[in-house]
Amino acid sequence: MPRAFSGIQPTGDIHIGNYFGAIQNYVKLGQQLGKQAIYCVVDLHALTNPAAYDRDLLASRTFEATLVNMAAGLDPEQVILFAQSDVREHNELAWIFTTQTPVGELERMTQYKDKTSKLESVPSGLLMYPVLMAADILLYKADTVPVGEDQEQHLELTREIARRFNYHFGDTFPEPQAVHAEDALRVPGIDGQGKMSKSKGNTLGVLEDFASIWSKLKVAPTDPARIRRTDPGDPHHCLIYHYHKLFSDPGVTAVVEVECARAGIGCVDCKKFLMTGVERSLTPIQDRARVLRADADVVHGALERGAREAQAIAAPVMQEVREKIGLVRARQG
Amino acid sequence: MPRAFSGIQPTGDIHIGNYFGAIQNYVKLGQQLGKQAIYCVVDLHALTNPAAYDRDLLASRTFEATLVNMAAGLDPEQVILFAQSDVREHNELAWIFTTQTPVGELERMTQYKDKTSKLESVPSGLLMYPVLMAADILLYKADTVPVGEDQEQHLELTREIARRFNYHFGDTFPEPQAVHAEDALRVPGIDGQGKMSKSKGNTLGVLEDFASIWSKLKVAPTDPARIRRTDPGDPHHCLIYHYHKLFSDPGVTAVVEVECARAGIGCVDCKKFLMTGVERSLTPIQDRARVLRADADVVHGALERGAREAQAIAAPVMQEVREKIGLVRARQG
Repeated sequence: MPRAFSGIQPTGDIHIGNYFGAIQNYVKLGQQLGKQAIYCVVDLHALTNPAAYDRDLLASRTFEATLVNMAAGLDPEQVILFAQSDVREHNELAWIFTTQTPVGELERMTQYKDKTSKLESVPSGLLMYPVLMAADILLYKADTVPVGEDQEQHLELTREIARRFNYHFGDTFPEPQAVHAEDALRVPGIDGQGKMSKSKGNTLGVLEDFASIWSKLKVAPTDPARIRRTDPGDPHHCLIYHYHKLFSDPGVTAVVEVECARAGIGCVDCKKFLMTGVERSLTPIQDRARVLRADADVVHGALERGAREAQAIAAPVMQEVREKIGLVRARQG
Repeated sequence: MPRAFSGIQPTGDIHIGNYFGAIQNYVKLGQQLGKQAIYCVVDLHALTNPAAYDRDLLASRTFEATLVNMAAGLDPEQVILFAQSDVREHNELAWIFTTQTPVGELERMTQYKDKTSKLESVPSGLLMYPVLMAADILLYKADTVPVGEDQEQHLELTREIARRFNYHFGDTFPEPQAVHAEDALRVPGIDGQGKMSKSKGNTLGVLEDFASIWSKLKVAPTDPARIRRTDPGDPHHCLIYHYHKLFSDPGVTAVVEVECARAGIGCVDCKKFLMTGVERSLTPIQDRARVLRADADVVHGALERGAREAQAIAAPVMQEVREKIGLVRARQG
């Protein structure tokens, strides 16, 4: 029986790139694996990001990330959903791995180099980030990790850490494998300039109100070669068509494809059809979010129960590790 | 009321250099501070030393270091004595500090440079060692740390970490000050070649049997200028005289000083007088050690109680830290 571990960043606003990229995969995986699907809002990792970390917002971002994932279909009755800092074993195992991981392996991480190239002073947390990530995953003996490609190198290091531990202390950890999300992962931004991402400010929020979404869609670029209403368009070079494939009925998407190519509909009409799909997709999520926000204790309670469930797995693994590395004192009698 | 934190290395054999250097100071400090004197067998730090760490011996070395410190006078009824790995908050606070401590500050540590200069591959634990040490101390808001001079730089970093946290998150931690042991710290080795140290193999063990100690003393160097029994010696250039000052009655030491200088006694006699002092000093310690070894549960029980006492201090400090850095989610209702 596989066990999957997924880290959820406690970022404030979840956008549709996250939704189609990660959350939908989380939901599917959760439906397959049940309580073997572990979702961890990684608030301790968030501390390593001086640009994004805000002590006044961290707790509410953790709450918000939990809420929106629940609203989007992650069911804490079915899966384990918790906050990293609620399970102390993450730091404990990370220290063990720290003593076993060469500095050089961490310095070679591409993300570390990228993140630190412009910093005057590099916080050690950035260097140690992948060690904590390895602990997150291996603490649950997870063999499956749905990650973006940008985390592939960190996952490789996780496997190396698992192998090294197994070599020295006997078989203990699986070597976890990545599950990559489909193409959907790379949802283009509303400006048509590459991937949707918060830092680029080109997002559509999952919980964003529809007037705001429409005001963004209205001015979004379409096929640049279609200048006049009467020009035929190429949907395969159109951002809006890409969104149709995510949001609209396959029937609507097929019609739009044909009508665009023969100038049967204009771009504004096409965007209105899209807006219908957006509303249909996001309304149930936004409704659930509203219900959860009205009764925040449901979210808090889910995190508390999730922490207990996560610890029930983590504690015996940590005990096994402690025994294997020689930290456990045996009473003689 | 000051609170002191002392780290005890879980090394197997405690020698008289440790005894006169650290343990006697621990005992004195404990008598002054009572339960505000915190002694921590640092088994998690021991993992960072690939040369000394042995998974089959670590737990018994922790036990042994506890036992010999208790035998030498550290009374767990009076002080808090525990093993680092029994209090999970050490790693938790260390991670917080990791996210706030620049890599450069750690790379500049002299011990790190010394320890790693000959290593092909440098474990990250060596780099992060002083961050965990800062967490050890600050977790108890200790303001007083009895350390050897070799730890002064790490303690400076601890103060820097405390200052940085206080600056960003409000006054939380004291800036701990070193208490250096007297000259006694530098007990010369039995070979007369500098400081007594396990790595040099020039030790007299606190629990070593007296026949073995005598066999070492018999061949130990004395004043090199005193070649014949009839030559007058210079006690101030004699290792044995140094030991007399540690072990013998002041009266005996005074007589030896005079008689050596006028060739009134030979070196063998002088060593026999010393042996009397050694036996008188070590016998009660060895007796107590024998009693504790016969009932190991007394030692185990002391560590278990010590961990509870340490955690009773650590948990609220950690909670304060978690609140200040924004990890604590507040339920609205």
